[in-house]
Amino acid sequence: MENKLKGIEEVLLMGPGPSLTYPEVYEALAMPTLGHLDPYFIEIMDGIKGMLQEIFQTKNELTIPVSGTGSAGMETVLVNLIEPGDSVLVVINGVFGKRQLDIAQRLGADADALEFQWGTPVIPAEVEAKLRKKKYKIVAMVHAETSTGVRNPAEEVGRLVKEHGAFYILDTVTSLGGIEIAVDKWGVDAIYSGTQKCLSCPPGLSPVSFSPEAVDFIMNRKTKVPNWYLDMSMVANYWAGKKRAYHHTAPINMLYGLYAALHVVLEEGLEKVYRRHGEMHKKLAAGLEDLGIKMVVEPEFRLPMLNSVWIPEGVDDAEGRSRLRYDHLIEIGGGLGDFAGKVWRIGLMGNTAREEYVDRLLKALADIIK
Amino acid sequence: MENKLKGIEEVLLMGPGPSLTYPEVYEALAMPTLGHLDPYFIEIMDGIKGMLQEIFQTKNELTIPVSGTGSAGMETVLVNLIEPGDSVLVVINGVFGKRQLDIAQRLGADADALEFQWGTPVIPAEVEAKLRKKKYKIVAMVHAETSTGVRNPAEEVGRLVKEHGAFYILDTVTSLGGIEIAVDKWGVDAIYSGTQKCLSCPPGLSPVSFSPEAVDFIMNRKTKVPNWYLDMSMVANYWAGKKRAYHHTAPINMLYGLYAALHVVLEEGLEKVYRRHGEMHKKLAAGLEDLGIKMVVEPEFRLPMLNSVWIPEGVDDAEGRSRLRYDHLIEIGGGLGDFAGKVWRIGLMGNTAREEYVDRLLKALADIIK
Repeated sequence: MENKLKGIEEVLLMGPGPSLTYPEVYEALAMPTLGHLDPYFIEIMDGIKGMLQEIFQTKNELTIPVSGTGSAGMETVLVNLIEPGDSVLVVINGVFGKRQLDIAQRLGADADALEFQWGTPVIPAEVEAKLRKKKYKIVAMVHAETSTGVRNPAEEVGRLVKEHGAFYILDTVTSLGGIEIAVDKWGVDAIYSGTQKCLSCPPGLSPVSFSPEAVDFIMNRKTKVPNWYLDMSMVANYWAGKKRAYHHTAPINMLYGLYAALHVVLEEGLEKVYRRHGEMHKKLAAGLEDLGIKMVVEPEFRLPMLNSVWIPEGVDDAEGRSRLRYDHLIEIGGGLGDFAGKVWRIGLMGNTAREEYVDRLLKALADIIK
Repeated sequence: MENKLKGIEEVLLMGPGPSLTYPEVYEALAMPTLGHLDPYFIEIMDGIKGMLQEIFQTKNELTIPVSGTGSAGMETVLVNLIEPGDSVLVVINGVFGKRQLDIAQRLGADADALEFQWGTPVIPAEVEAKLRKKKYKIVAMVHAETSTGVRNPAEEVGRLVKEHGAFYILDTVTSLGGIEIAVDKWGVDAIYSGTQKCLSCPPGLSPVSFSPEAVDFIMNRKTKVPNWYLDMSMVANYWAGKKRAYHHTAPINMLYGLYAALHVVLEEGLEKVYRRHGEMHKKLAAGLEDLGIKMVVEPEFRLPMLNSVWIPEGVDDAEGRSRLRYDHLIEIGGGLGDFAGKVWRIGLMGNTAREEYVDRLLKALADIIK
């Protein structure tokens, strides 16, 4: 019987995630599986919670990884905080804001969208105007819009949301571990992320964190959460309860991987990690300019870890990426949604944000556009 | 900074899952991460689908692993097939049947329960009587009740459900890869399982399969699935569509692990694997009898891979299991729900169903009850 695993090549992952997994994470994934109620495994869970609190800059007790990929984190946050008829404002400037809106609508929310042009950031004054006109229970936004490479003003919007007494939901799938996130300082009530971006752990888990006010709401909902798997009132008992009651079997080895990834990031130090992302971004941007490749986002709103560029003229989208993949063993991402066929997305995430990889990519790009 | 991963010991996992991971699976988990849209990764996905079809004995095109643990599979099947107000019959004789009911109720189903005593199997004649009295859209049952160790008559119940024109949902989290499952022959419309039981891959994925009739229903629902992450009408595009459109980032390395596990199982051969589970079960049952430890379930209804025993008199539940864990490096499971504090659960799942492990456990049990 054929075994396809034997043919897996080492591809330099410079797309929108997954990024290049840390060696320590590979090692962790292959460590002996323990039971999900094993006392030593529970110590590992506690270690993960503590490290997530550090990287999210929060004291929130309910700071845990959800057993699913980043989108499961989005689902978790929305399904736990929304009850049918709740008024929700979703601030949108890309695919992932639209996804928040879609989920809110599926959950029966009275959801309004405030849309901004793709490739440009959210404008706080317009959010404020919207908040003055209508009382919202929840405001949701994406910090790092993975579909465009824009960094949204999460702190400013947070201040406004708090002034208007709403819950503030923030998507940090792409930003966590690459730029600063300060949950408590920014007044975030519910946040979610992914492991396969700047944490450089394979996809499979979604770190989330809920403020005490959000937890209080969840524990006193009028209706049961219409999602058993992601119901935080029960999941919390397993991750943070005194009795550590069984809910669902946790993804043990993936959690080893996340533990290792967080450990690597915190050993390097958050300040240093953020600086590395910024410096590699500058190096990449300069190199792209030399090649005549134009970035989509204005310099002051760019994310260091997700660089959108207009597909160079004369280069076919699929063919160009295919040549990178097969001639150079490099993956970059295509465009999503409105940007499909127009934009390429270059990731500098976690373990991928290194000088040698930036150089290798720039050389490969020079080859395929010549 | 402390690194807790360094302290992980090799524990013999003989509880209700996770089981002892196959060496080939550990190796697979640590292989280079590819992108979730990488052409070679898509070949690996196709390999997984084909192997799952074989082990589920089905031609169903929509036969894929869901990006979450077994309970996410339960959620997936129910949330995709239930619309508010739908009549659902849940046949219950343990914790996991109760969980199906809980989810159906959260989704707004008109849900009836048909309950049987824990430790005894579902009686098809009573299911038939219920089906004669009321028209149900869906009948859901657990094949291998992990909380009790009972094997339910899945084929007989399937015949009845089909006669009455309902969708048949079957939970095979614990049975897949340990005893025969024949999706097409039994008339199952939606089935789900887990990876951490008889497939001996760490938890994190849930294989599911939907009949063409079930897929047809999902594609033509009156309401959107109230769960974006698990909406099969979109997930199917990524796993089985012609364009393989991005939905959410798949858990790449976990999928390598599942590929490896399925490969190991099919290389050994299903018949042989089932026989091994049966033989090890007999050996264990005989050894337990010698020790005076009594099994909960009557011989003809026992699952080979999940053996419930009454906690031996004079032995404290927690202390007994703790001695197994620390003195003998063996994990077994405690009781769930009504069986908490009364029952222990001994797993013989996949890689754990081996003579040397049965011997090691029996010796350890002899030590702690003496």
